[in-house]
Amino acid sequence: MSNSFGKLFKITTFGESHGPAIGGVIDGCPPGIALDLEAVQNELNRRKPGQSKIVTQRKEPDEVAFYSGIFEGKTTGTSIGFVIKNTNQKSKDYSHIAKTYRPSHADFTYDKKYKGHRDYRGGGRTSARETANWVVGGAVAKQVLKDISINAYTSAIGDIRVDTPYQQLDFSQIESNIARCPDPEKAAEMIELVSAIKKQGDTIGGVVTCVVQNVPVGLGAPIFNKLHAALGHAMLSINAVKGFEYGSGFEGARLKGSEHNDLFQSDGTTQTNNSGGVQGGISNGMDIYFKVAFKPVATLIQKQMTIDSDGNEVEMMGKGRHDPCVVPRAIPIVEAMTAMVLADFLMLDQATNI
Amino acid sequence: MSNSFGKLFKITTFGESHGPAIGGVIDGCPPGIALDLEAVQNELNRRKPGQSKIVTQRKEPDEVAFYSGIFEGKTTGTSIGFVIKNTNQKSKDYSHIAKTYRPSHADFTYDKKYKGHRDYRGGGRTSARETANWVVGGAVAKQVLKDISINAYTSAIGDIRVDTPYQQLDFSQIESNIARCPDPEKAAEMIELVSAIKKQGDTIGGVVTCVVQNVPVGLGAPIFNKLHAALGHAMLSINAVKGFEYGSGFEGARLKGSEHNDLFQSDGTTQTNNSGGVQGGISNGMDIYFKVAFKPVATLIQKQMTIDSDGNEVEMMGKGRHDPCVVPRAIPIVEAMTAMVLADFLMLDQATNI
Amino acid sequence: MSNSFGKLFKITTFGESHGPAIGGVIDGCPPGIALDLEAVQNELNRRKPGQSKIVTQRKEPDEVAFYSGIFEGKTTGTSIGFVIKNTNQKSKDYSHIAKTYRPSHADFTYDKKYKGHRDYRGGGRTSARETANWVVGGAVAKQVLKDISINAYTSAIGDIRVDTPYQQLDFSQIESNIARCPDPEKAAEMIELVSAIKKQGDTIGGVVTCVVQNVPVGLGAPIFNKLHAALGHAMLSINAVKGFEYGSGFEGARLKGSEHNDLFQSDGTTQTNNSGGVQGGISNGMDIYFKVAFKPVATLIQKQMTIDSDGNEVEMMGKGRHDPCVVPRAIPIVEAMTAMVLADFLMLDQATNI
Amino acid sequence: MSNSFGKLFKITTFGESHGPAIGGVIDGCPPGIALDLEAVQNELNRRKPGQSKIVTQRKEPDEVAFYSGIFEGKTTGTSIGFVIKNTNQKSKDYSHIAKTYRPSHADFTYDKKYKGHRDYRGGGRTSARETANWVVGGAVAKQVLKDISINAYTSAIGDIRVDTPYQQLDFSQIESNIARCPDPEKAAEMIELVSAIKKQGDTIGGVVTCVVQNVPVGLGAPIFNKLHAALGHAMLSINAVKGFEYGSGFEGARLKGSEHNDLFQSDGTTQTNNSGGVQGGISNGMDIYFKVAFKPVATLIQKQMTIDSDGNEVEMMGKGRHDPCVVPRAIPIVEAMTAMVLADFLMLDQATNI
Repeated sequence: MSNSFGKLFKITTFGESHGPAIGGVIDGCPPGIALDLEAVQNELNRRKPGQSKIVTQRKEPDEVAFYSGIFEGKTTGTSIGFVIKNTNQKSKDYSHIAKTYRPSHADFTYDKKYKGHRDYRGGGRTSARETANWVVGGAVAKQVLKDISINAYTSAIGDIRVDTPYQQLDFSQIESNIARCPDPEKAAEMIELVSAIKKQGDTIGGVVTCVVQNVPVGLGAPIFNKLHAALGHAMLSINAVKGFEYGSGFEGARLKGSEHNDLFQSDGTTQTNNSGGVQGGISNGMDIYFKVAFKPVATLIQKQMTIDSDGNEVEMMGKGRHDPCVVPRAIPIVEAMTAMVLADFLMLDQATNI
Repeated sequence: MSNSFGKLFKITTFGESHGPAIGGVIDGCPPGIALDLEAVQNELNRRKPGQSKIVTQRKEPDEVAFYSGIFEGKTTGTSIGFVIKNTNQKSKDYSHIAKTYRPSHADFTYDKKYKGHRDYRGGGRTSARETANWVVGGAVAKQVLKDISINAYTSAIGDIRVDTPYQQLDFSQIESNIARCPDPEKAAEMIELVSAIKKQGDTIGGVVTCVVQNVPVGLGAPIFNKLHAALGHAMLSINAVKGFEYGSGFEGARLKGSEHNDLFQSDGTTQTNNSGGVQGGISNGMDIYFKVAFKPVATLIQKQMTIDSDGNEVEMMGKGRHDPCVVPRAIPIVEAMTAMVLADFLMLDQATNI
Repeated sequence: MSNSFGKLFKITTFGESHGPAIGGVIDGCPPGIALDLEAVQNELNRRKPGQSKIVTQRKEPDEVAFYSGIFEGKTTGTSIGFVIKNTNQKSKDYSHIAKTYRPSHADFTYDKKYKGHRDYRGGGRTSARETANWVVGGAVAKQVLKDISINAYTSAIGDIRVDTPYQQLDFSQIESNIARCPDPEKAAEMIELVSAIKKQGDTIGGVVTCVVQNVPVGLGAPIFNKLHAALGHAMLSINAVKGFEYGSGFEGARLKGSEHNDLFQSDGTTQTNNSGGVQGGISNGMDIYFKVAFKPVATLIQKQMTIDSDGNEVEMMGKGRHDPCVVPRAIPIVEAMTAMVLADFLMLDQATNI
Repeated sequence: MSNSFGKLFKITTFGESHGPAIGGVIDGCPPGIALDLEAVQNELNRRKPGQSKIVTQRKEPDEVAFYSGIFEGKTTGTSIGFVIKNTNQKSKDYSHIAKTYRPSHADFTYDKKYKGHRDYRGGGRTSARETANWVVGGAVAKQVLKDISINAYTSAIGDIRVDTPYQQLDFSQIESNIARCPDPEKAAEMIELVSAIKKQGDTIGGVVTCVVQNVPVGLGAPIFNKLHAALGHAMLSINAVKGFEYGSGFEGARLKGSEHNDLFQSDGTTQTNNSGGVQGGISNGMDIYFKVAFKPVATLIQKQMTIDSDGNEVEMMGKGRHDPCVVPRAIPIVEAMTAMVLADFLMLDQATNI
């Protein structure tokens, strides 16, 4: 069951980075949506490797083929199967990790859990290549959401942090630079930092902020299907994510109630939005915003000591073309997972209107 | 579906704070567990109101009655129904909020979602009274976990923060003070702070740290059922939680890979544990640790402006007995949700051993 | 997970026949339904023991207490907890079966599955007493269904069979006799048969027919959530059920396509209804009808040879007050499960209307 | 959610008969199974069209390509994606049904449910071509089941019925004839009947019996996850199925308890097996057997009156190559669904052994 996400709008995925293909099934998409396939491919292009000098130089076209669920340009309500061929698997590159556990990767845990049965090439199922599937699902979900807008951006890389509140940023600038940061000065600093880190064969972590606007009141449900908890689950599913906070987040834990409470205005909106657009797990119509912390990529182009599956100490060094910082490519992934959560919750909310 | 949590070890709950009772069904508990009912009641006592001067002075015995699934002292493998009577509902207290939306509460969102149908008394279903149900579920789950130990503690209230790493704290001291903070000096400061805040009719947020030890390797599953994502979902389900981070968390997002990577030792353990005991969503046998941010309680014993359901501006002031800080009582709740996640994942992992 | 039924309109239950109570949680009921509690109790009364001379003479008031989810007479959209106290447990009666496996009961299978841990008194969790919970869930579901009508009736007991098509029967006569058979002559024969069987200390099987009318077109979904498959699952969950068929059923398997096809009329209805109101798993607006086969009750007031848990052959004889034929009391249970399926499918269908 | 089946061993599928491909994802398969891919293809060959004179003459190679979850010949525990290309879509053949509702097909119900959006070519998602996906899932599941054997066979076509109990049949003869009936005389009669029916452009229904042997005691769970109910749900999901019965089935409803009860032998087996290997929803170690009723195929090579989507009466006649009787090709489908249910229940049962 672990390869499915969502309750009514649901994606189920498969694929190892060095198998013949990855892909999935989108189940529950409403009928009659005129699917813009170019928009789907554009989202994949935002995620794909090789797109700039600060991400991995691997080349992978990441072209999605839809196999079902769409007829004469529109969704039919039946399940949407899709496949993305793996075209750039250089399996030879990976013989050195067949029995070696890369530090802070999931080689060790998969090997133990699955009793030695795993596709070690390129990390196999643990590879972030899987997230291309999610981007497909999210791109379809975005077209279900209509007026709801989702904008994610790089808000920190290492110690370079955007402190400007999102309300004062121009989201149209996000795609204007390869850091995907809407603050041009910070973006320049970030790009410089990542370039330097890359030269060292090192990597660096960062933070993504995501803002969801025009959300109707009433999405989410009490107790165990709270909207922010589902968003948290979605974000924590993304490779390398170490933390999630929404609204005032960890900073809010320092505050007093008299500072933190969001007072209502007569139209039901609130003067402040420490709640982050969600109260009691249900959207209140204000902007939903949250932050997602990404650890530095674990593959270094540096020598590291580690062990092999027999417990011998071995020296290893990452080969090939890896991301020095995952954050810029994570932007479309964060948006995709957000879109799928919202599509699901729109449908769950609608279900009781009988 | 929103009132159920877990896949194989599963709890389903019901209850409003001012209805006749709350309760739930624990489904999937393995048979043959000699259930220590006193231990269950002890956990409830740790959560119950009125236990110290820095929490709500409301009195509620919170006695749980088990109705099924236990026979001759042992679980039978069938579903365990339980009920906790509400004995202290003063419904008169709540007439002032029948049509008034308390700031930063869920009155507004429930009212909109459910089209005006809600039990407003004491917050109804939105009340944290619900978490007593979870503590019952967690107390049963703890007895399923055997050697796995779970210790949560107060690591911050307002700006008073425990910076000592958990490894240097004495968990046996957690219950030695009413702040549930294992650092006695910080505990004293926290108690003083909360007492002062309470006098002001104000409230204050805080952070809970939770440490899980003796976890077997292999719990959790790829992609959408990652162990840390399930823990995040669980924590974000708790009332007032605004953020979740595990291992290095948000701090890890500032680091370089060469600083962050956990190097293996020959026995498969790691020298450091920035991973927080989970790699690729699967436990690696190291300690799992995470932090949970709680916002300040929204009910103030101060005048606040707000609106009623007709959009009129009205002045309101919290009545009754409320928590000035939710964190000390949240400790057993964090542990309970953690225990239920782990019991579920133990069973999920076991399922493939056919 | 095995104690839950439904996806959006969902019931989760607990309870052994001789524990303190049975009960459950109805999750997902839409808000704003003015719940007729008397109607709920009436359904329970139709199911309860002791209601006529041809059913068990056990007396059990089966009064349901609702604990949540209803406020000022209306559902609130939150989970509905309910409890039915067990008032008539004579635990002494059951000592003789503590270690004895009753033939064609589930004593043996529960004992093996749960490794000897089971509440053997009155069958414990295997008792059909559990179905009182379902009747509560179904009675709530019926009030969600509005115009959809559900009528089940006894269509066979032993060899006495109603061959008249349901269209020619008067459903208002179902409750006019204790056999719950709308054909008065057949009803009389059935009552006579069951009375004779009862005198022999024996039992007898039978068939229930259920007819659902005014179903909107479009309920059910392709592939694995077909409406008739969900109804089949629901019916096969009822104690003692051995078979399910809908529309033409097993008889249809004998026919040619030219005999079996339902030709359309210009308004989209069909001239015949061998399809039983469902095509491709989706309701077509015609009557849904199906049959459910019940085996004879396994408890006989006759001596039977059996074994105990040590494998010793022992003689046993049923004690107490048992149903000579389960079918009359099964009528409200069949209706209840049908109602819950339909409420669930109405909501699932509505979900895509975003 | 409707395109997924199973809880732990789970299949999710996609595909229309005339799209580029069908396929699916098998999630939850245990690691380390040396997958015999030839055995998988053999199962597909048993189902594929064109295999004999009494089934459709359509030619479709039905070659499955696995894309993930298998490494060095063994399952890895990650999700198994697979695709079967559609090579024989003659879309031109289907223009005549673009707006015409074929009698007793799902054209009308899909059109209404999905508001006019559907792939009408060859029935689209309603086509039994989908069941090729299930056969793949079932062929993998069979390899998980080890000693458990599953044998389905044709037990009736029209009025020609095998009355010999399954215990007296030689299952090795099932594949010896194109009717897949282990009684050679009946098989000959069936083949003759279907050939005659085919010449008339008509179709005929039938019954499949399935026998599962060497099932361990303890599969299945109380209340809503009963083994026989899951089997029923699985069978009722198969296209054209109208009924399901297990053990004594509808015949058992005629019997007295003293005739029907299965008396135990000292080793825990029973003298008779009216229970059909399941008591209280849990396997008892005896053979599980059940019957599945298939209606006659709805597509006739005869003129039929019907309506189009505007409600106009139109005459139509099936074109192309259709099955005169679906039963012989349904045998591997019945087995496949049975295998997936059992694999799932083996894992569910194992989960509590912690």
